[in-house]
Amino acid sequence: MTTELYKKIEQYMLNCMKDSAHDKEHIYRVLYMALDIAKTENDADKNESLKELNRTNQINMDVLIIACLLHDIGREEQFKNPKVCHARFGSEKAYHYLRNIGVEEEMALHIRDCILTHRFRNDNLPASIEAKILFDADKLDVAGTLGIARTFSYKAQVLEPLYSLDEKGEVLDGTYDVTPSFFQEYKFKLEKLYDKFYTQRGTQIAKERQASAVSFYTSMLQELRACYSIGTEELRKNINFDCEKNKTE
Amino acid sequence: MTTELYKKIEQYMLNCMKDSAHDKEHIYRVLYMALDIAKTENDADKNESLKELNRTNQINMDVLIIACLLHDIGREEQFKNPKVCHARFGSEKAYHYLRNIGVEEEMALHIRDCILTHRFRNDNLPASIEAKILFDADKLDVAGTLGIARTFSYKAQVLEPLYSLDEKGEVLDGTYDVTPSFFQEYKFKLEKLYDKFYTQRGTQIAKERQASAVSFYTSMLQELRACYSIGTEELRKNINFDCEKNKTE
Repeated sequence: MTTELYKKIEQYMLNCMKDSAHDKEHIYRVLYMALDIAKTENDADKNESLKELNRTNQINMDVLIIACLLHDIGREEQFKNPKVCHARFGSEKAYHYLRNIGVEEEMALHIRDCILTHRFRNDNLPASIEAKILFDADKLDVAGTLGIARTFSYKAQVLEPLYSLDEKGEVLDGTYDVTPSFFQEYKFKLEKLYDKFYTQRGTQIAKERQASAVSFYTSMLQELRACYSIGTEELRKNINFDCEKNKTE
Repeated sequence: MTTELYKKIEQYMLNCMKDSAHDKEHIYRVLYMALDIAKTENDADKNESLKELNRTNQINMDVLIIACLLHDIGREEQFKNPKVCHARFGSEKAYHYLRNIGVEEEMALHIRDCILTHRFRNDNLPASIEAKILFDADKLDVAGTLGIARTFSYKAQVLEPLYSLDEKGEVLDGTYDVTPSFFQEYKFKLEKLYDKFYTQRGTQIAKERQASAVSFYTSMLQELRACYSIGTEELRKNINFDCEKNKTE
């Protein structure tokens, strides 16, 4: 790809992201992880793993780079109307943009399909190697510390709590929570992520990152449970103590 | 304290916090950590540590509990006008509220002083044991995983990035950052927190929590640097490669 075309599409992406520093950072991380995966898959060209991915040709790097840059340009529309799927909307938006700036039909359609199938909760599964790499690179940004960081940021924006309490006032671990919270999201999504990658390199990076996320969740639950268990017991003592004292005075 | 008085002041605090689930959770954690510290300090009544704290009497548990419940009721005013100090404003707001509901002058003044001196960046240092316990309990909520979680939440609300890049596109560790970010806050505030506690129990809990925060920061920096260093190199190759190709075609 020429530097000129890259800069042009990058600028379009930045305009779509507007003021969200977090969203912009995410795009570059996805692009960089996709390039890491592509490098490894290309280097291991004759490996068995490539046959499993039904690959006969080299990865189309232009398709991959553009799909990464544009994969979340439908986010704003989904934010305004939660019924809109950002993958579906963004894929059409990207297709029309690319055709408008002169990208040929076949490539624009390929990029459209990559964007359409990048979403985790989705019936449209990635088919091409470029689509699979985008999917994995996007999911890597919910693995490890970055998954933790981004989930906190998101939960703060939608004003959801960090955790929920049971009827006794004990901190729930997220497993059976009905109320949305950071712990619920960790148990429902983040924890189950690590065996859902398409590429070998994606799986490898995810596994390397897993320990940092597990360790954080475990420590946070332990710190919170210690705090609530000692605290609620002491509060009960202090309040009951005075109640009793008042009665006997 | 009677259950009735506790419930009344708790409800007033909840009204002041309005819709912020995060702020409410923080208040209870500070209260519970304060009760943990108070229990330990009381249990070790004859220890040398108490002499260092200039304590001759038992901790006034009513003062401590009420000060914890009300310590952040000036937050909304500071949020609306950043020139307002929530500790100063909240201390006056609490004093007038407490006098209004019939709390005696001496106790209302004591609680006012605890709230005034709880802030980290403050010239007013905590003097009484109750003020020192509130200070420590509040600071414990910026230690360990909770400090990480709350900093992410705050940075998302004020739309600040997770990290900054240097002119070469490498991820900065926060030490010399001029742009506000999560990493900057970690290096400027969170990392330096652990030797600034007044009570022995506060220091002990902080040290126990320190490893979880250090481990998270270290992992996040490492995950990000790996991502950016491989990614930017591969991007350069792919774009330059095509630039060169275009020239020779």
